[in-house]
Amino acid sequence: MRNTLDMGDEHTTHPPVRFETHPDRYKHWRLEFPKEHGGAVARLVMDIQENEGLRPGYPLKLNSYDLGVDIELADAIQRIRFEHPEVKAIVFTSGKDRIFCSGANIYMLGSSSHAFKVNFCKFTNETRLYLEDASLETGVSSIAALNGTASGGGYELAIACDEIVLADDGSSAVSLPEAPLLGVLPGTGGLTRLVDKRKIRRDVADVFSTVAEGVRGKRAVEWYLVDEAPAKAKFDEAVKSRVDAMVARATRKPHPPVKLTPLDPKRTATGTEYQFVSVALDAAAHKATITVRAPSGAEPETPADLAKAGANAWAIRAWRELDDAILDLRFNHLDIGVLALETSGDAARVLAVDAMLAKYKDDGLVHEVTLHMKRVLKRLDMSAKSLFALVHPGSAFAGSLLEIALAADRIYMLDDPKSALFTSPMNAGPLPMGNGLSRLQSRFLREPERVGRVLESTGAIDAKQALSLGLATFAPDDLDWDDEVRIAFEERASMSPDALTGMEASLRFGGPETLETKIFGRLTAWQNWIFQRPNAVGARGALTLYGKPERPEFDFRRT
Amino acid sequence: MRNTLDMGDEHTTHPPVRFETHPDRYKHWRLEFPKEHGGAVARLVMDIQENEGLRPGYPLKLNSYDLGVDIELADAIQRIRFEHPEVKAIVFTSGKDRIFCSGANIYMLGSSSHAFKVNFCKFTNETRLYLEDASLETGVSSIAALNGTASGGGYELAIACDEIVLADDGSSAVSLPEAPLLGVLPGTGGLTRLVDKRKIRRDVADVFSTVAEGVRGKRAVEWYLVDEAPAKAKFDEAVKSRVDAMVARATRKPHPPVKLTPLDPKRTATGTEYQFVSVALDAAAHKATITVRAPSGAEPETPADLAKAGANAWAIRAWRELDDAILDLRFNHLDIGVLALETSGDAARVLAVDAMLAKYKDDGLVHEVTLHMKRVLKRLDMSAKSLFALVHPGSAFAGSLLEIALAADRIYMLDDPKSALFTSPMNAGPLPMGNGLSRLQSRFLREPERVGRVLESTGAIDAKQALSLGLATFAPDDLDWDDEVRIAFEERASMSPDALTGMEASLRFGGPETLETKIFGRLTAWQNWIFQRPNAVGARGALTLYGKPERPEFDFRRT
Repeated sequence: MRNTLDMGDEHTTHPPVRFETHPDRYKHWRLEFPKEHGGAVARLVMDIQENEGLRPGYPLKLNSYDLGVDIELADAIQRIRFEHPEVKAIVFTSGKDRIFCSGANIYMLGSSSHAFKVNFCKFTNETRLYLEDASLETGVSSIAALNGTASGGGYELAIACDEIVLADDGSSAVSLPEAPLLGVLPGTGGLTRLVDKRKIRRDVADVFSTVAEGVRGKRAVEWYLVDEAPAKAKFDEAVKSRVDAMVARATRKPHPPVKLTPLDPKRTATGTEYQFVSVALDAAAHKATITVRAPSGAEPETPADLAKAGANAWAIRAWRELDDAILDLRFNHLDIGVLALETSGDAARVLAVDAMLAKYKDDGLVHEVTLHMKRVLKRLDMSAKSLFALVHPGSAFAGSLLEIALAADRIYMLDDPKSALFTSPMNAGPLPMGNGLSRLQSRFLREPERVGRVLESTGAIDAKQALSLGLATFAPDDLDWDDEVRIAFEERASMSPDALTGMEASLRFGGPETLETKIFGRLTAWQNWIFQRPNAVGARGALTLYGKPERPEFDFRRT
Repeated sequence: MRNTLDMGDEHTTHPPVRFETHPDRYKHWRLEFPKEHGGAVARLVMDIQENEGLRPGYPLKLNSYDLGVDIELADAIQRIRFEHPEVKAIVFTSGKDRIFCSGANIYMLGSSSHAFKVNFCKFTNETRLYLEDASLETGVSSIAALNGTASGGGYELAIACDEIVLADDGSSAVSLPEAPLLGVLPGTGGLTRLVDKRKIRRDVADVFSTVAEGVRGKRAVEWYLVDEAPAKAKFDEAVKSRVDAMVARATRKPHPPVKLTPLDPKRTATGTEYQFVSVALDAAAHKATITVRAPSGAEPETPADLAKAGANAWAIRAWRELDDAILDLRFNHLDIGVLALETSGDAARVLAVDAMLAKYKDDGLVHEVTLHMKRVLKRLDMSAKSLFALVHPGSAFAGSLLEIALAADRIYMLDDPKSALFTSPMNAGPLPMGNGLSRLQSRFLREPERVGRVLESTGAIDAKQALSLGLATFAPDDLDWDDEVRIAFEERASMSPDALTGMEASLRFGGPETLETKIFGRLTAWQNWIFQRPNAVGARGALTLYGKPERPEFDFRRT
């Protein structure tokens, strides 16, 4: 069955999306290191090539973007963190005249399936959150130098930066025109950041979000939409002075650069093979198995060794591979609804890596590597797939890899003397979820004392202990394992994928909410709803008719 | 334009819903005061009359409910608070054999429009939250005495209670079968309360929420789904012992009973007239004006006088009328998208009422009256209508009535010497929003010191002060007022109602999240999305095919 309402869903098949790129191949961004700042500043110039969209059919006019543009941005931020440790601030600006960025391309959205729109927004949200993570955790501040109008996703990129300077030139504005013009919401956290990050008064935010033409100059400053609106002649100076201040107060720890080398996965019809990660697809069962392997040999024991090993270190490579695998499953394998999460190899080697990361946590590179693990795990938490971890002899669910099991909706553990889980300092806080809690804290909201009890467990935790500690959901023995696991997967795969997505989004994030979980849980859910509504995507909906002479026709019944 | 996807939306018109009722007219509940507890306990027996649904076409089998059932429940809880101050605990039980409650009636849901489903869930959520409010704020505890199976909304009612006792009789179970059986979510806060109220481990909650047949006896206790599961023979004793303990530790303050008398509104095609509230409908403009009038004469100055005035006191009656007006607009006037919020009369009289409420806040009845105001204002916050407050000479936006303006998305204030706002102690905390903050705190997240500055303003706050304090959004003068206000309403009414609903849900609730805001912001948004999806409501969707021999067919693309 296909969505009948969903514009394009019946006709559009999206070509596979690939997430690896490199500055040498960027089409839409220039990653520059202006000499005047002596390497301490990265300048990301958005200069979008109209005819280089991911798919044909929608020229990327007025610096509007599609997923391909955001994949480059995500790559650039990642590389600034690993390859350019000398960078302390990022300046976002535009290569176009009078326009900074006009947001996500509307024709791209209009011709995308519902699932693609939702996944697109999720990825762009992650990119902006990870830009904020670079500021908060690594100490790379960012500034949006709006040398032209920033509308929709353009302004949403700006408010993901720490500071915003808008040229007061009589025409440049900031705006969120989605609701008034398109009948949808700003899809990249804009509304949440208005009231929760910039803490703009709700009535002011309301006015701003319904004025299609946006707000300019002094008023934009008065409303806290931007931090400064200098005259055009003083714009560069104002930006430079803020950037200099950012660099001066930066606390980024030095470390040797680490080049992020290509992952070179082997993709076939039945799955993908990376060095440390395998993905096996079972399309008929709507299931895929992700296996993450422990290191196969010695891994770096000091930060210096880690720098030497670079992107080949397990602590970097395995997690980059897992990240790529998750994104591939999200975008290119929509029919896969359930992921079996497996690990294999020598748990002791994982624990050794974790011990090194914990011992040298104050080192710049170690810190960066740990933050990357954190982001990959968050990507897993946020994936609209059911996650079942399978633990059995040969598994390596230890420390950082145990977090993969703790991210799962259920943990099945074979009751066998050789089945084991292991904790490490990496389970005690360095890899928090979006809600700010560790996965163990999120798990034991009712009995927080269990967190300590689990962390005190040294050595192998067998199935019976895992059950009593509250780590394993089920621990069938050898006689029952095959049937119980098979039935669990079959049942899960037979349920409504939509109900499961909504259920998992509700159960995974107990406890406190943060800007991040509000973006994914509250704002995104409303946006998904609106993306289904005829008022947006019906034949006479606002998104459908954008740019056409006809005016949208609304069903005015308020829901 | 009509929703093409929305089952029933084209064909179903819902008869108007009325929200006033009385125990003498209950069809589905018996409100009893068992002699054995000497009046300290109210027993609410759910004994649903199959053929007495609000609309024909869906027999309410197996103690399943529709909106009419929940209107009676809401009325009962309200009356226990006002009319039965001697009650310290509520026991929920069933008048049917072997079934406590099987939740919302599926055929009712299947034959309801999308808007009705959403409004139905919102109301039932409010009823359960107000049951929890009765426990937390008034000291009326509640216990679910599950003398039979509680599934779906039946279990959701149980977890809204403080304690749950389930008969261990080999067949009685608790369950949330919505996802596995119906392809939707439990719609009354079930998932959120699993992980955020009972703090059940996320993997256990996952299993429970996907096992259609539910969980019985000892396992239900082990999983914290219920507090106790005594054998059938010991069931009554176990319930009684818990109820006795509730009564023994109750801290409910005594007050004279206050009978909630009928509101007797006059309804016409153009609006509704209550004693203190008027609603004027402008269907063509998708607009309604709600006017709340200040007291017209002397109001009680002491708790004793308040008890004497009873439901005729402005502090009770005006707010009950406003509550009824809001619910009427939500359910019976879907085409109304924007509400003009107005007040009129003598602000000094409102301030006098507020002063009395503040002075005697420790009195039981005063406390109850204030809690009621709080709930009515929350109902406004949660309404899917745009709210514009209009302040001009003759308005009475003072104290508790100022909260109505603070609940609005915008405040327009005529710049005239006679326009004025007034604060009172009621703006300083006793009327919090669902997020736990006062409306002033929610307004000034960026500059919390402004809360104090506003509260220190004694006497009339004129338009210029209101602007500079951050209370007024706009303050046009007499020359501009008519045009500016008219255009604001016209523009608002011309926008996509869905985008506005999602936008307002995002901007109104900055700052912290609570169980309550998670239910309305996160869970409800996902449910709304799912209620639109073909996998639930399409021709082959699970909700559509429930009870039919065919199996649902799912589009397995995960979004």
